[in-house]
Amino acid sequence: MSTIALLTDFGTRDWYVGAIKGVLRARAPKAQIVDITHEVPPQDVAAGAFTLAAAALSFPPKTVFLAVVDPDVGSRRALIAAAVDGRYFVGPDNGLLSLVLARAAAPRIVRLTRRRYWAPHVSQTFHGRDIMAPVAAYLAAGGALDRLGPPQPRFALLKVPPARRQAGGWSGVVAHIDVFGNVITNLPGRALASAPRRARVRCRRRTARVVSSYMEGRAREVVAVVGSLGRVELAVFKGSAARVLKARRGDRVELTTV
Amino acid sequence: MSTIALLTDFGTRDWYVGAIKGVLRARAPKAQIVDITHEVPPQDVAAGAFTLAAAALSFPPKTVFLAVVDPDVGSRRALIAAAVDGRYFVGPDNGLLSLVLARAAAPRIVRLTRRRYWAPHVSQTFHGRDIMAPVAAYLAAGGALDRLGPPQPRFALLKVPPARRQAGGWSGVVAHIDVFGNVITNLPGRALASAPRRARVRCRRRTARVVSSYMEGRAREVVAVVGSLGRVELAVFKGSAARVLKARRGDRVELTTV
Amino acid sequence: MSTIALLTDFGTRDWYVGAIKGVLRARAPKAQIVDITHEVPPQDVAAGAFTLAAAALSFPPKTVFLAVVDPDVGSRRALIAAAVDGRYFVGPDNGLLSLVLARAAAPRIVRLTRRRYWAPHVSQTFHGRDIMAPVAAYLAAGGALDRLGPPQPRFALLKVPPARRQAGGWSGVVAHIDVFGNVITNLPGRALASAPRRARVRCRRRTARVVSSYMEGRAREVVAVVGSLGRVELAVFKGSAARVLKARRGDRVELTTV
Repeated sequence: MSTIALLTDFGTRDWYVGAIKGVLRARAPKAQIVDITHEVPPQDVAAGAFTLAAAALSFPPKTVFLAVVDPDVGSRRALIAAAVDGRYFVGPDNGLLSLVLARAAAPRIVRLTRRRYWAPHVSQTFHGRDIMAPVAAYLAAGGALDRLGPPQPRFALLKVPPARRQAGGWSGVVAHIDVFGNVITNLPGRALASAPRRARVRCRRRTARVVSSYMEGRAREVVAVVGSLGRVELAVFKGSAARVLKARRGDRVELTTV
Repeated sequence: MSTIALLTDFGTRDWYVGAIKGVLRARAPKAQIVDITHEVPPQDVAAGAFTLAAAALSFPPKTVFLAVVDPDVGSRRALIAAAVDGRYFVGPDNGLLSLVLARAAAPRIVRLTRRRYWAPHVSQTFHGRDIMAPVAAYLAAGGALDRLGPPQPRFALLKVPPARRQAGGWSGVVAHIDVFGNVITNLPGRALASAPRRARVRCRRRTARVVSSYMEGRAREVVAVVGSLGRVELAVFKGSAARVLKARRGDRVELTTV
Repeated sequence: MSTIALLTDFGTRDWYVGAIKGVLRARAPKAQIVDITHEVPPQDVAAGAFTLAAAALSFPPKTVFLAVVDPDVGSRRALIAAAVDGRYFVGPDNGLLSLVLARAAAPRIVRLTRRRYWAPHVSQTFHGRDIMAPVAAYLAAGGALDRLGPPQPRFALLKVPPARRQAGGWSGVVAHIDVFGNVITNLPGRALASAPRRARVRCRRRTARVVSSYMEGRAREVVAVVGSLGRVELAVFKGSAARVLKARRGDRVELTTV
C-alpha cells in the first residue's frame, strides 16, 4: 500500500486539510494518508523545506509527498512534481522542495501544466485541493511523472549558504530551530569526529563544548551534539538552547577544532 | 478501502479521539480513518456544521463522516445517521449535520435507537465512543442504514438565513471566518459573475471591490473574491479580513452590481 | 490490517512525528498508523501513562502502541516491549507503560537489546525513530516479542496510590485532569453504586453531590459522576471543575456514603 505524506501550513482547525484528504481518498483509495505536519509557520517556506527534508529521509520509496506552503497562490508561480530517489514530491516551485531536490544529482522535475490531471474546476485560491492533490493521487496510484507536464530542469532555491571548511574548523549557519528549542546547524557531524574533546562551537557570542548526549550538559549550559539528522546541534538539557542563545535561523555558527 | 472521516471538538491533547479511533479500528478494520479536524471551537455547532459541509464535498461516495460536537451529551437530544448522495453522516441531531442534509432533496435519516449496534456498555458522558463510533464502523463495514433505528424525516436546522436577491444585488450573511481570517459569506459566486467590475461587497461599513485573486489587493485592502467553495469571500492579501473588518459570523453582507 | 497507535510528547509542529511515521510505513506497509496524541505535556510521563491506558482500552487485539515520552533519552534507561491482553506496547521503561502493564497479572516484557531489529544507525537523541519505531513495525508485521531481547520481569512503576476503602467510604486521588477540566479520580464507579443519593465526594475542601449526568449540575456547581472510564469524576456543566476546584493531579479525594 503506497503512502501519501502531507506537509502544509494550513493548521488543523479548518476544513482545508480535510478537503485535500477527501480528494486523495477519492482518487487514490489504496494509498494511506499520513500527516507530517500542518503547522509549518504560516507562509514560512524555509521552515517547511527543512521539515519536509528532515522527515522525508525516513519514508520508503514510492512515497508521494504533497507539500503546500504557498504564499503566492493565484500568481504565476509554477507548481512542480519531481522524482528523487524513487520518491515523489509535489508542491509550488518556491523553494519548498529545494532541500529535497538538492539531494539528487539530477532530479526529474516537471511543471504541472496538463489540466486533465487536475480537478474539473480549479479555484483561484485553493490549488492544494484542485491541482496538487489530484496530481499527488495520480502519482500514488502509479501514474507517470512525465505525463503531468513538460520537464523543468531548474527549480527555485532557498538561499541557504552551505557549510564550509575554514582555517581551524568550519563555518556555517543555523538551519532550523526545532520545537524543543534545539538549534540545528548546517554543519555536518563529521566536523566533530576528529577531535571532539577540543572542538568548540560558537554561536551568538557563546561557546559550547561538545558532548555525546544532551544529558551531559549542566543546568542552562549550551552544549553541542551530533543530532539525529547527522548535523551539529546546540542544545540545553531540559531547556531551550534557542532561548538561552536568542538564536534565529540564519545566525552564523563557527566550529573550531584547534 | 472505505473511509471514516472524523470531525470533533475534542482537541487532540487527551485520550478521547484515540478511544474513538480504537473502536473504529476494532469494528471496521478495513476502513481508513482520516482526521478532518478535532479543533472545532468547543461546543460551536455552527462552526462544526460549516467545516463538515465544506470538507465533505471532496470525499468519495461511501465515506462515513463521524461528527461529534455535542454540548448536550447525556440529555434526550437524538443521535442520527443519514445518507446523502451516497455518503453517510453520523452525529447528534443538533444542527451539526444540517448544512449537509440540506443539500439533498430527501435525505434518508434514521434515529439511533437500536442498542445492538452500540457498545455493550454505554457511558453517560461519551456517546462518541459508545454509540456513534460503533454505528459509523457498522456503516463503513457495509451495514444497512435502516437497521440502526426508525426513520426520522425531520432534523434540527441551524438558523442560517439564505442569501437572497434584492433590488440592485444580493443580501446575505457571514457564514464562516476561516483560520486565515478570510470572511466566507453565503453569497453564491454567480452573484459576481455578471458584472464583476462594477460589483461592490459591503460588510461592517466597508466596501470591497471585486478581484479575481487575493494578490490583487493592496496592503490592508479588503477585496472580494469567489473563493474555493464557490462563495463570495472577503480577504486581505497576506492579512486577516476578519480582523480588519472586525467581522463575525452572522454579520450582514450586501452585494451591489449597479 | 493491523494498527500502530502513536502517543508522544513531540507536538505536531516539527519533523519528529513524520520521521517516525516514515519508518513505520517503510517497515510495516500493511499496518494503519493512528495518532492517539502527540501533545502529552512535555516530559510528563504520568499524563502520558494515563492517556495511553485510557485510549488503549478501545483498541483491538494485535494493536501495537508506540509510546514516546522519554525525558532521559541518551541515558541508560531501558527501552521495553510488552504484550498485555494480545496488544503490544513499546516505549521507555520509565513508568509510561506501567498503568497498562499493571492490568495484566503477568505481562510478558522484554528489554530491547537486539540491534538487528533497530535502524542500521542509531542516533544519540532520537530513539523513537531509530529503536522504538523499527521494533513497533516488527511487531505489527507479525514479529515475535521474544526475539527483541531478554525477558525483564519487572518494570518501572508510577507512584500512584491505589484507591482504598475506609470507614464510611473510600479514599483516593486525582488521577488526571482532562482537556475539558474534568477531574478524573482513581475511585471506581462501584464506590457510588450502593447509595448514590447519600454519597458525597470531597476534594479541595469542596463537597460534590452525585448525579447521573453532567447536565444535572447547576451553574458552577461541582458534581460527581461515573465517567466514561468507569471512574468517579468531578465536573462542572459547561465549565471546568479543575478551575473551580484549583485541583491538581495527586490531590486527595474522599468519598463518603454515610
